Amino acid sequence: MSKKQIRIGMIGYKFMGKAHSHAYRDVPFFFDCDGVPVMQAICGRDEEGVKAAAQKLGWASYETDWRKLIERDDIDLIDIGAPNNAHAEIAIAAAKAGKHILCEKPLAMSVEEAKEMLEAVNKAGVIHMICHNYRFVPAIQYAKKLIDEGKLGSIYHIRANYLQDWIIDPNFPLVWRLKKEVCGSGALGDLAAHSLDLARFLVGEFKEVNGMMETFIKERPIGEMSGGLSASVKGGELGKVDVDDASIFMARFENGAVGVFEATRFAGGNRNGNRFEINGTKGSIRWDMEQMNTLEYYSAEDEIGSQGFRSINCQEDIHPYAGAYWPPAHIIGYEHTFINLFAELMNGIASGTNPTPNFEDGHNNQMVLEAVEKSARTGRWVSISELRG
Amino acid sequence: MSKKQIRIGMIGYKFMGKAHSHAYRDVPFFFDCDGVPVMQAICGRDEEGVKAAAQKLGWASYETDWRKLIERDDIDLIDIGAPNNAHAEIAIAAAKAGKHILCEKPLAMSVEEAKEMLEAVNKAGVIHMICHNYRFVPAIQYAKKLIDEGKLGSIYHIRANYLQDWIIDPNFPLVWRLKKEVCGSGALGDLAAHSLDLARFLVGEFKEVNGMMETFIKERPIGEMSGGLSASVKGGELGKVDVDDASIFMARFENGAVGVFEATRFAGGNRNGNRFEINGTKGSIRWDMEQMNTLEYYSAEDEIGSQGFRSINCQEDIHPYAGAYWPPAHIIGYEHTFINLFAELMNGIASGTNPTPNFEDGHNNQMVLEAVEKSARTGRWVSISELRG
Amino acid sequence: MSKKQIRIGMIGYKFMGKAHSHAYRDVPFFFDCDGVPVMQAICGRDEEGVKAAAQKLGWASYETDWRKLIERDDIDLIDIGAPNNAHAEIAIAAAKAGKHILCEKPLAMSVEEAKEMLEAVNKAGVIHMICHNYRFVPAIQYAKKLIDEGKLGSIYHIRANYLQDWIIDPNFPLVWRLKKEVCGSGALGDLAAHSLDLARFLVGEFKEVNGMMETFIKERPIGEMSGGLSASVKGGELGKVDVDDASIFMARFENGAVGVFEATRFAGGNRNGNRFEINGTKGSIRWDMEQMNTLEYYSAEDEIGSQGFRSINCQEDIHPYAGAYWPPAHIIGYEHTFINLFAELMNGIASGTNPTPNFEDGHNNQMVLEAVEKSARTGRWVSISELRG
Amino acid sequence: MSKKQIRIGMIGYKFMGKAHSHAYRDVPFFFDCDGVPVMQAICGRDEEGVKAAAQKLGWASYETDWRKLIERDDIDLIDIGAPNNAHAEIAIAAAKAGKHILCEKPLAMSVEEAKEMLEAVNKAGVIHMICHNYRFVPAIQYAKKLIDEGKLGSIYHIRANYLQDWIIDPNFPLVWRLKKEVCGSGALGDLAAHSLDLARFLVGEFKEVNGMMETFIKERPIGEMSGGLSASVKGGELGKVDVDDASIFMARFENGAVGVFEATRFAGGNRNGNRFEINGTKGSIRWDMEQMNTLEYYSAEDEIGSQGFRSINCQEDIHPYAGAYWPPAHIIGYEHTFINLFAELMNGIASGTNPTPNFEDGHNNQMVLEAVEKSARTGRWVSISELRG
Repeated sequence: MSKKQIRIGMIGYKFMGKAHSHAYRDVPFFFDCDGVPVMQAICGRDEEGVKAAAQKLGWASYETDWRKLIERDDIDLIDIGAPNNAHAEIAIAAAKAGKHILCEKPLAMSVEEAKEMLEAVNKAGVIHMICHNYRFVPAIQYAKKLIDEGKLGSIYHIRANYLQDWIIDPNFPLVWRLKKEVCGSGALGDLAAHSLDLARFLVGEFKEVNGMMETFIKERPIGEMSGGLSASVKGGELGKVDVDDASIFMARFENGAVGVFEATRFAGGNRNGNRFEINGTKGSIRWDMEQMNTLEYYSAEDEIGSQGFRSINCQEDIHPYAGAYWPPAHIIGYEHTFINLFAELMNGIASGTNPTPNFEDGHNNQMVLEAVEKSARTGRWVSISELRG
Repeated sequence: MSKKQIRIGMIGYKFMGKAHSHAYRDVPFFFDCDGVPVMQAICGRDEEGVKAAAQKLGWASYETDWRKLIERDDIDLIDIGAPNNAHAEIAIAAAKAGKHILCEKPLAMSVEEAKEMLEAVNKAGVIHMICHNYRFVPAIQYAKKLIDEGKLGSIYHIRANYLQDWIIDPNFPLVWRLKKEVCGSGALGDLAAHSLDLARFLVGEFKEVNGMMETFIKERPIGEMSGGLSASVKGGELGKVDVDDASIFMARFENGAVGVFEATRFAGGNRNGNRFEINGTKGSIRWDMEQMNTLEYYSAEDEIGSQGFRSINCQEDIHPYAGAYWPPAHIIGYEHTFINLFAELMNGIASGTNPTPNFEDGHNNQMVLEAVEKSARTGRWVSISELRG
Repeated sequence: MSKKQIRIGMIGYKFMGKAHSHAYRDVPFFFDCDGVPVMQAICGRDEEGVKAAAQKLGWASYETDWRKLIERDDIDLIDIGAPNNAHAEIAIAAAKAGKHILCEKPLAMSVEEAKEMLEAVNKAGVIHMICHNYRFVPAIQYAKKLIDEGKLGSIYHIRANYLQDWIIDPNFPLVWRLKKEVCGSGALGDLAAHSLDLARFLVGEFKEVNGMMETFIKERPIGEMSGGLSASVKGGELGKVDVDDASIFMARFENGAVGVFEATRFAGGNRNGNRFEINGTKGSIRWDMEQMNTLEYYSAEDEIGSQGFRSINCQEDIHPYAGAYWPPAHIIGYEHTFINLFAELMNGIASGTNPTPNFEDGHNNQMVLEAVEKSARTGRWVSISELRG
Repeated sequence: MSKKQIRIGMIGYKFMGKAHSHAYRDVPFFFDCDGVPVMQAICGRDEEGVKAAAQKLGWASYETDWRKLIERDDIDLIDIGAPNNAHAEIAIAAAKAGKHILCEKPLAMSVEEAKEMLEAVNKAGVIHMICHNYRFVPAIQYAKKLIDEGKLGSIYHIRANYLQDWIIDPNFPLVWRLKKEVCGSGALGDLAAHSLDLARFLVGEFKEVNGMMETFIKERPIGEMSGGLSASVKGGELGKVDVDDASIFMARFENGAVGVFEATRFAGGNRNGNRFEINGTKGSIRWDMEQMNTLEYYSAEDEIGSQGFRSINCQEDIHPYAGAYWPPAHIIGYEHTFINLFAELMNGIASGTNPTPNFEDGHNNQMVLEAVEKSARTGRWVSISELRG
């Protein structure tokens, strides 16, 4: 049977550009999808940089203006890895041009923007996804399965934190990820966005939140990202940090569960500590991205005396996506979360059915993010419904 | 040199009565204190019960009325293990009678009560302690030492949770620990009280808090504790649970650190999960009561490439209190926290210098507890200074 | 009902003397045994030392000659904590005097000695135990229960190691524990003896072994133990180390299982790493003395996808001995292994039924130790039956 | 500068075929090597199977006879993933044809074969490697660096085990991996081969060994591998298992270190437990393939009191190969070990310098394997020099 060629135009060529490019390369190797990605064009403002990236990352051509990319007839899917403040404009234009869209998270700078983006893709009838890759860890998908099967019963608690330390040095430069006009927020939109998306995926919809945001280092030397999470100072001038170094919030969910969330870039020794624990009437689960293949699972239905958290290595054929890779416990890593997500995207475009998480999730996540910001400003609980407008 | 005999009168003979009795027995075996405990009298309302306890636990006599205990000339120290609502009256009476006092936590039912208790002991000039035993884990004392030496630098974060699951079954009976008039609060006063005491010990004084409290199971069959954390139903009648099953709060400290705390009795699989992590400019520490001998310590000053949390087994001679026990890694347990605390108490009474934690700590902890309750009621931040009155 | 007073005479007052004394003190507090220990007399060659120990450890009197101790009418039980080369003579004399006997491990210097000791206690009809305290960790007893119930099925494998590092420094002095004439062997008799006793308890009887022994540091400055596992150099003279620093052996068991064992005092970072894993047709278990309350248990009968090692905290009422102590996960430590063993000893003497492990176990363990030594000398497999002679 | 195209002909298209194919695809994406792999031809005996594999795995053509593959002018490198009994013939023919060679492990069926292979590649002057992929885990390479820098001092101990459980079910079929004529040995050549290669890499050359081999299940239903480590029964007939289910051996190294090794496919709950610990005079390391990114490192030079194993996540720029991938603690997996090894192979061919591990390592490993087998047969120690012939 013939497969559908899906021609990609990708915007952004640094950390996320590399992760996405790799996933496009690898998805047909591991998965037998109905859609096959064709790495048509990569786009970035700096011609020298994007040209080199095209060659290094395996793209057939490049563009320096995203508008041109969208105009091209030979592109089916626009993959938006540009900074957060560019998401809305690009996505709306791409939708109008009838392109399918994959957008990095957080979806937008505001609920209002997110709503416009959602309306645009809905109106255009294109396939859309938001790149919440951590949903696609086999251990997370298996956790979802356990919860859906009732193995945890009704949920009482989620406690999630996402701890990093890459800017703990006060001399780490002021890069785009620390500028409000580019990012919207700091640890909140970058890290807590992942945690709350997992919470929505595994626990349910948020009802209300109450949070705080903190900027420990108010000024930093101006500089720029140099790849991954590294950066370099450019000149000695100081600039004001106007995003949060750390954000904490409490939550109530529609189903009665309560939650507590923390995201920070100031937790020394935690390089990528994306972790949570969920407790229900019948069982509990724990997960840590740094050991992402392992799901810890406690069942209150195990025999008395033999109860305890089991350490499950979710690289077995029965675990979602795991069978595509290697034998049991021959572990996979960070990049595979993208490959799995992209497999869903390829199948979704080929079949015309929209996968999750998509712009609706992005919009709903944005409401939670904005509610946290509002509660941090006002010092009180904010209902998600207040944000729905 | 001759040692001072310190004659004890202890109120309460169940879980805490057992823990305290054992510590009085063992403290002279392991430590060479200037004061030697004499287990003079134990006190409880039920004559049969207290008589049996006196024999089992090794007390020379018993009383059924705490007032009589306080009146006795042959008692130097009153140890208050009665339910929380009795602490203030007993402590104030004991102070007036010139007795030294050890009081279980939380100190009181309110800041007002705590303040009266503190004033009473100060006025009487007696030695006073509050039984925050977890401070006396060698790993915790070593953590304190590392922090005092500047090994962590300035503190940015504490995240602490105390997770249990002993009442997760909706049919677990309504016991005194679930009644507001007896306890003041549920998970907050029982569990979070320990966490916030450790936070005050290791991080510093709280500035303001914002919290939430939740009661998942609103009604339970009436019953009573039967030892440890077990209980039995008495008759089929249901009663209203008026304390929190879970409490969560965010905090700012006087020194600029931020904190997040959670206490719950509904975290399945966590039998006694008293845990925290602290992050500073130069290093981090993690601790878990279920593996209480281990302190995890990260130093940002370790060589690049070799940085990571070290797992330190704090049963070496160099670790506080550890030398009194066994060779390295021949671990100690829960009961030793009491033995260590009691050694300080014996030395304090013998020397006339008041150890910590004492009623001042109890009072300050009570302000935090009450601030959390107030914030949970009002949905806003509450300054500790508001409570100081 | 009246309880039987069991009057103890204990030989040795250092590390083991402290551990045993404490256990005698604590056993009536935690357990309701039919026998009650009376700490009658402690015995050591150095009068000043033993006198101070008697007071510190709580003994009513002291002796400097073990023969006198055995002659005393007011002693029911002789507790032998003297160096290994004195065990046989003392035990045989004690048995002849009709005393019950508790002997530290390893039982003897040779199988021949062990056999004489066993014959002596059998002939005298006294109660006898060997102090293999690690059998009495609740997690180990629970492991035994799981195995006896068939939860692991037939055993294929045991791999056990006991890793310490207290003599890794070449300047650590030549103490009695490093002298063959006093100890018989080094890591083998001190550490591997525990591992193989656990193997016999949990897996079954050894059939044949093949081992190697190594002395990394051939000479050390002469010195002596100063308490626990610490020591001090006395003068600068060097002496020859004639025991093993490390011993390794392979084994076949009567039931077809295979085993591999390693004991060393040269495994840096392992302060008291007494560990093993057992694999059977239906399940596996793992254990580590440094986290002694935790048993890891894998069941092949768990649902596919949810299989993994469970981390069971064996401080629940259902776990053997655990109910005597504290609520779930309020952990116990090294010293409690002695308390539990001594409770069995008190009940055994009171009831006249001999508990395990006893001199028969000590004798059987000795056969394995001697077989390992013989195989190390000859470089070939040695059947246990060769030693039975 | 122009890069060298290296045209590959690969024999074998199942588990290893997939792992190698993927690595050829990904190596130019992550690394900037001087050689670029061209996936020219894949070879297998079953035409239908190899044709499908060529398409799925991305090979330009296929062959059904390895001799034809070797004859082709458009092939520079022969990659041998055929069963072990075919390695020697293919490799010698390939060398004679002037092809560079990558060979799966174990190199050969005997030391004699291995020697001939080594002589053939040396004579031909081609580049040769053996695919001991676990050497190329960043944590392992970093361990090597620590050892080379003297951070562990002189090595006393290695204890390594490789535990799997994929054939623990007695009804798992008799596949080629359980047939001596095809594999040479079972757990020994499949699993212990990896452990001993790591030991040679990190500790040094073996001097003598003493081992045992065990086959727990003597007969199994005949069947075949169906991908990864799964298999299916074909007909009900039973066949004899003539390889080891488990192998254990003790070792002495040339530098005085001692070692103990165990490999088994009967350790329930261990899916891919490739683990070791190394102890030296100054420090120790531990590693576990199931958490392959983490190296545990103990330094005896850390401050007293703060000593303990550090948990180092070796996905930082400073760790070998790690910088090619993702930011710190964004972990990599099993497949990356091949990518890293293949990067060395591409550079080696392009530059004409032979990387390690190569056929000399394969030959030396084979001597250890054969010495273990000989010792298991004879029940005595076997010197490696005996095998050198």
